[in-house]
Amino acid sequence: MNEAKDNIIVVTHALTGSHHAAGTYEGENKPGWWDGLIGPGKALNTDRYFVISTNVIGSCFGSTGPMSKMPSHDARYRYKFPVVTIKDMVKAQRILFDRIGIHHVHAIVGGSMGGMQALQFAVHYPKFADKVIAMATTYATQPWAIAFNKVAQEAILEDPNFKNGYYEPEDIAKNGLPGMAVGRMAGHISFLSHHSMRRKFGREYKRTDGLFELFGKFQVESYLEYNGYNFTKWFDPLAYLYITKAINIYDLGRGFESMEEALSKIQAELYLVSFSNDMLFLPSEMKEIDEILKARNYKKCHHFEVESDYGHDAFLVEIDKFEDYVRNALKPRVKPITPAPSPWHEEG
Amino acid sequence: MNEAKDNIIVVTHALTGSHHAAGTYEGENKPGWWDGLIGPGKALNTDRYFVISTNVIGSCFGSTGPMSKMPSHDARYRYKFPVVTIKDMVKAQRILFDRIGIHHVHAIVGGSMGGMQALQFAVHYPKFADKVIAMATTYATQPWAIAFNKVAQEAILEDPNFKNGYYEPEDIAKNGLPGMAVGRMAGHISFLSHHSMRRKFGREYKRTDGLFELFGKFQVESYLEYNGYNFTKWFDPLAYLYITKAINIYDLGRGFESMEEALSKIQAELYLVSFSNDMLFLPSEMKEIDEILKARNYKKCHHFEVESDYGHDAFLVEIDKFEDYVRNALKPRVKPITPAPSPWHEEG
Repeated sequence: MNEAKDNIIVVTHALTGSHHAAGTYEGENKPGWWDGLIGPGKALNTDRYFVISTNVIGSCFGSTGPMSKMPSHDARYRYKFPVVTIKDMVKAQRILFDRIGIHHVHAIVGGSMGGMQALQFAVHYPKFADKVIAMATTYATQPWAIAFNKVAQEAILEDPNFKNGYYEPEDIAKNGLPGMAVGRMAGHISFLSHHSMRRKFGREYKRTDGLFELFGKFQVESYLEYNGYNFTKWFDPLAYLYITKAINIYDLGRGFESMEEALSKIQAELYLVSFSNDMLFLPSEMKEIDEILKARNYKKCHHFEVESDYGHDAFLVEIDKFEDYVRNALKPRVKPITPAPSPWHEEG
Repeated sequence: MNEAKDNIIVVTHALTGSHHAAGTYEGENKPGWWDGLIGPGKALNTDRYFVISTNVIGSCFGSTGPMSKMPSHDARYRYKFPVVTIKDMVKAQRILFDRIGIHHVHAIVGGSMGGMQALQFAVHYPKFADKVIAMATTYATQPWAIAFNKVAQEAILEDPNFKNGYYEPEDIAKNGLPGMAVGRMAGHISFLSHHSMRRKFGREYKRTDGLFELFGKFQVESYLEYNGYNFTKWFDPLAYLYITKAINIYDLGRGFESMEEALSKIQAELYLVSFSNDMLFLPSEMKEIDEILKARNYKKCHHFEVESDYGHDAFLVEIDKFEDYVRNALKPRVKPITPAPSPWHEEG
């Protein structure tokens, strides 16, 4: 962070992401989820920018979530944890930033649920960030996405090992949670596309022994199994329920007369990045935002549709297709667009 | 059936379909699954055509399946039932038709897995039908479709009530099979499209009480719940495993050097009907068949892409969009295209 505090970028994470957005922690092999985008010389150039990322409330990587202990209690919240919204996630971050003396940032960047947070920041705290880059996301979650989350929620709720929410994490570590694995498999379908699956897996068999190929297993089945069952080792089921709920009920227009009114609050330079084969959040949804703002004569909205047949996950894996766009978008103008940082909470 | 036996149409059913394709059975309210297409004066005009449909082997509506009793045994097959292929389904039907004196038919018509059977008939018994109409289907199941079936299979297998396949049907009727319900919910996503879900459900709540809308339930969630949990009341889980397996391993080219070689066996007038927003079996897959046949200078292949944003289920619900096409396709030519019926089994 420089002295003027004008080089701060907030990175907001997706459903199963965390504050570990880039770099590799000591003793671990896996870098952060956006390591290709964030680092020295990369699009979010850490030689120049001070990049912060926090774990959203409701999640299970350090923030307060349903498995946290209640204040002055030894018991966990579980279902006593309130339903959390994307707006709550953003508010909590704003309060945290305030505590550590950050009242204004250069940019907010996020994809998927991270993009929802970025947009929510733009509407709810219009003076907080000069630039907002929202990728692979929407203004309000549509039923196709809600449906996939529903499958995962039901699969978790119906699993006897979930014990209606009164499981012990150690038991799940030991006995697994097949329902969550199944739900996550459905999720993984939604992150890809027909085309990317075909290119990635085709009809290849994982095991094949000629005549008996009928009893083999397709590569795509093996991929889903691995990712599904592995997921239960590192993510908490109640957190999954709460965060998917937050995604499903996300609606930028809530509390406003219309989506137009909500979007009219935005003052930041807004960059919308969508991916042509994203099945979860269609490019047309981003276009709707762009059109509403253009119709209001808002000059600072830009929509960039990345050509990709990868699907929703493109924002994580096809970084080469949008890193230059992000790098350019982040370039500071000579004159700051928004007023000087204000030390109080602004509520849009 | 007329005396010349030249007015027979075979209708082949999809994953959860049955021989009950049209009309309403005594004491029931629900007509057959293609009642809009089959009947007096309809596209498959029963005043003119003799329409037959049989339940595929492996299914649970009268045909032999995994829950059937083994010959000279009191025990059910369960996992002793062999893996069934689409080709097996077609062979079994051919044998049945042979027994009842039908050695040649005017047309075979089917959608989805029914379309797979129609194509398999065309390749495997090239002289059996004058016309083959295959809708919303493919030449080999692609990973996107395999993945959805995988979710359902895992969900069933992991359900304790499934008892590793040794359940009693009465227990499932009593206690339900949530795993199968969850799997079916995933299936229902695959039958629709982002667009049709948005039009059908939007972000409407099933229950809403103003301030507390956050705790309500979306229409789309209610739809999935209803269809998922209801499904376990009328479909057998082992049959679901076997039939989804048959769909996943379906590959018209199996046993041939190439797909080209397989398709070169076709002699029928072939009508491919695809739906523009079918996510499960893309129009481009039908186009591939059409292109292979056109490249071989086969004159009797026709591809009709129906404009529809409904998704895969369009072949069941948007009958008005293709009934005229089917009606025309079925019109007999002056000269029969295929040779006279042969009483022996031809194997392509």
